[in-house]
Amino acid sequence: MSSTLELTQQLIQLDSITPRDEGCQELMIARLEDMGFTIERMPFGDVSNFWAHRGHEGPLLCFAGHTDVVPTGPVEQWQSHPFQPTIRNGHLFGRGAADMKASLAAFITATERFVAAKPHHAGTIAFLITSDEEGVATDGSVRVVDALEARGQHIDYCIVGEPTSDQRFGDTIKNGRRGSLSGQLIVHGIQGHIAYPQLAKNPIHLAAPALAELAAEVWDHGNDYFPPTSWQVSNIHAGTGATNVIPGHCDIKFNFRFSTEHTAETLKDRVHQILDRHGLAYELHWQLSGNPFITQPGALTDAIGSAIHEVTGVETALSTTGGTSDGRFIKRIARELVEFGPINASIHKLNECVSVDDIEPLAKVYEKTLHKLLS
Amino acid sequence: MSSTLELTQQLIQLDSITPRDEGCQELMIARLEDMGFTIERMPFGDVSNFWAHRGHEGPLLCFAGHTDVVPTGPVEQWQSHPFQPTIRNGHLFGRGAADMKASLAAFITATERFVAAKPHHAGTIAFLITSDEEGVATDGSVRVVDALEARGQHIDYCIVGEPTSDQRFGDTIKNGRRGSLSGQLIVHGIQGHIAYPQLAKNPIHLAAPALAELAAEVWDHGNDYFPPTSWQVSNIHAGTGATNVIPGHCDIKFNFRFSTEHTAETLKDRVHQILDRHGLAYELHWQLSGNPFITQPGALTDAIGSAIHEVTGVETALSTTGGTSDGRFIKRIARELVEFGPINASIHKLNECVSVDDIEPLAKVYEKTLHKLLS
Ligand SMILES: [Zn+2]
Ligand SMILES: [Zn+2]
Repeated sequence: MSSTLELTQQLIQLDSITPRDEGCQELMIARLEDMGFTIERMPFGDVSNFWAHRGHEGPLLCFAGHTDVVPTGPVEQWQSHPFQPTIRNGHLFGRGAADMKASLAAFITATERFVAAKPHHAGTIAFLITSDEEGVATDGSVRVVDALEARGQHIDYCIVGEPTSDQRFGDTIKNGRRGSLSGQLIVHGIQGHIAYPQLAKNPIHLAAPALAELAAEVWDHGNDYFPPTSWQVSNIHAGTGATNVIPGHCDIKFNFRFSTEHTAETLKDRVHQILDRHGLAYELHWQLSGNPFITQPGALTDAIGSAIHEVTGVETALSTTGGTSDGRFIKRIARELVEFGPINASIHKLNECVSVDDIEPLAKVYEKTLHKLLS
Repeated sequence: MSSTLELTQQLIQLDSITPRDEGCQELMIARLEDMGFTIERMPFGDVSNFWAHRGHEGPLLCFAGHTDVVPTGPVEQWQSHPFQPTIRNGHLFGRGAADMKASLAAFITATERFVAAKPHHAGTIAFLITSDEEGVATDGSVRVVDALEARGQHIDYCIVGEPTSDQRFGDTIKNGRRGSLSGQLIVHGIQGHIAYPQLAKNPIHLAAPALAELAAEVWDHGNDYFPPTSWQVSNIHAGTGATNVIPGHCDIKFNFRFSTEHTAETLKDRVHQILDRHGLAYELHWQLSGNPFITQPGALTDAIGSAIHEVTGVETALSTTGGTSDGRFIKRIARELVEFGPINASIHKLNECVSVDDIEPLAKVYEKTLHKLLS
């Protein structure tokens, strides 16, 4: 059995439902110590994190990842137990198989082979590992980055092990992510009996034209790296069920996924403009989950792109679509940052899996990238 | 103590929360039998109803009313127990005091005095009383009217005892009511992750412009008897609370209060036109609570209007505003129908009350109306 597959299975057996680590990090640390890494455990609250490095010069190449997994959902709906790694039809099944225990294992074995081949490699190899990525993500990478930044630690090249492949292994790497900005909007009206509308103000009627305008707004056209900014309402609620009452308020939750053509501030301003122009009486609470970030094509995208091509024959594409990742925190101290990992079709679902045939190639891509950047 | 006040108090003591009658009707029936009325009890299911008449010729003047009351709400928030009639500061407090036990009592005593004065009065006096007006109203007046219609019974003049006075006792009688038409609308979209809006269809975004157009629509300008038709959304719900999911559907409840410038069918057609023009995929379930009805000024409005003026000095106004009443059912077999009763400010609320000084005048208005129409 390949050593990467074996380590992936060992990690899946540890039921590290976010934010628990359940020994995953100690398994990785033992292997890293054998290679001569210096380990700094950085726990915050319930969350396990560590920073490890080997070497003392630049450039610094950091692998970033998370040991926590999302909850399993109904275990009886899995074809095999989510924490008993099982190979069926060429796929390794288990919670975290694709997101992201195969990537963790692959970067460990890649580093072992690279260090064995180049014990005196150039630069520094580092690991930034957390068990709080899938949950609230408040005591994980963001806290470690705070600590690293406070002591002046910079990263030249960061590879985040998120599963980025789409249709075929190697077809997509993320060189950035959109920003995410949420709003909780309460539109105030005046409650009243539906037979006397002149004594009430219907907040649904007041909100509708503003919502229509917000939904129709073209926020931007995106740019070379980002799709257009998108605004979506996730929830709207008004009325208690009574059919003869005009409700007193209408509650709306919405979210922006935004490109670098906007900042959180320019989006907030525009929303307030529209709501104000419609004369609404409202409260609006904002929450910024992450600013957009981008790594321009350069040394890191070239290295990992050519490594992918050499291993798989696939021409990889750069993408910034999809959800958020810890990249939003790490980019602050990283000059170049990309995310690359296996096919993400099954992540966060029942019967999560990774193709067995993609596991060693993933380690090989990481290994070749180390050679290209630290030789 | 006035006999009308005394009977009102007796009726309030019977806790006839809809659709229970709790003996109210037998109390009325005993008094009517003493006057020589013929009684037909017409119970349907849990609901008590009766039809009573005295006389065999036209014209037929019918008093219509309900013995049921709405629930009390939190009893501890009443200043006196809702079923213990209590006089304080010139007002009689108790659930049903204004809606409509004072009216029931007043028409009984008015009839007693009228019959005593004119034992051989012209025409016929009738009572149509139900205990199912405040609830679902399916086994009450509508069923009695069905039975009366089936045997060819017509009503020349109907007085419904609903509390119609607004600021001052006698200032308003209802000579009609708007129609009420409700709709339950489900706008279908396609559920998806908020980070991938291109794979979803947001039903809130789809519905918003249609709702804005419906809210801005001028349905009609009303007419001599009716205010303009009004369309109001009472409930809108989409989303399960999750802030990263575009919901699959948006559920909307709305209601029309409509004038005789429209029918239920013309309103339905117009709503479907607007929804269809916006290209919505939707389901829409309609419920017609009542068509609009009107009594043109004539013998009945003249009689009750001049009776009010003689008793109170107030010039009464005709109105068709407000909610629905059993008039919507009775008008089908009634040539002329008006509603008149005490001030309605406290109905359906905590500490419902009627001014003691309005109780005998109410009986007097009813008595004078009997004289004017059946002498
Ligand atoms: Zn992940
Ligand atoms: Zn009533």
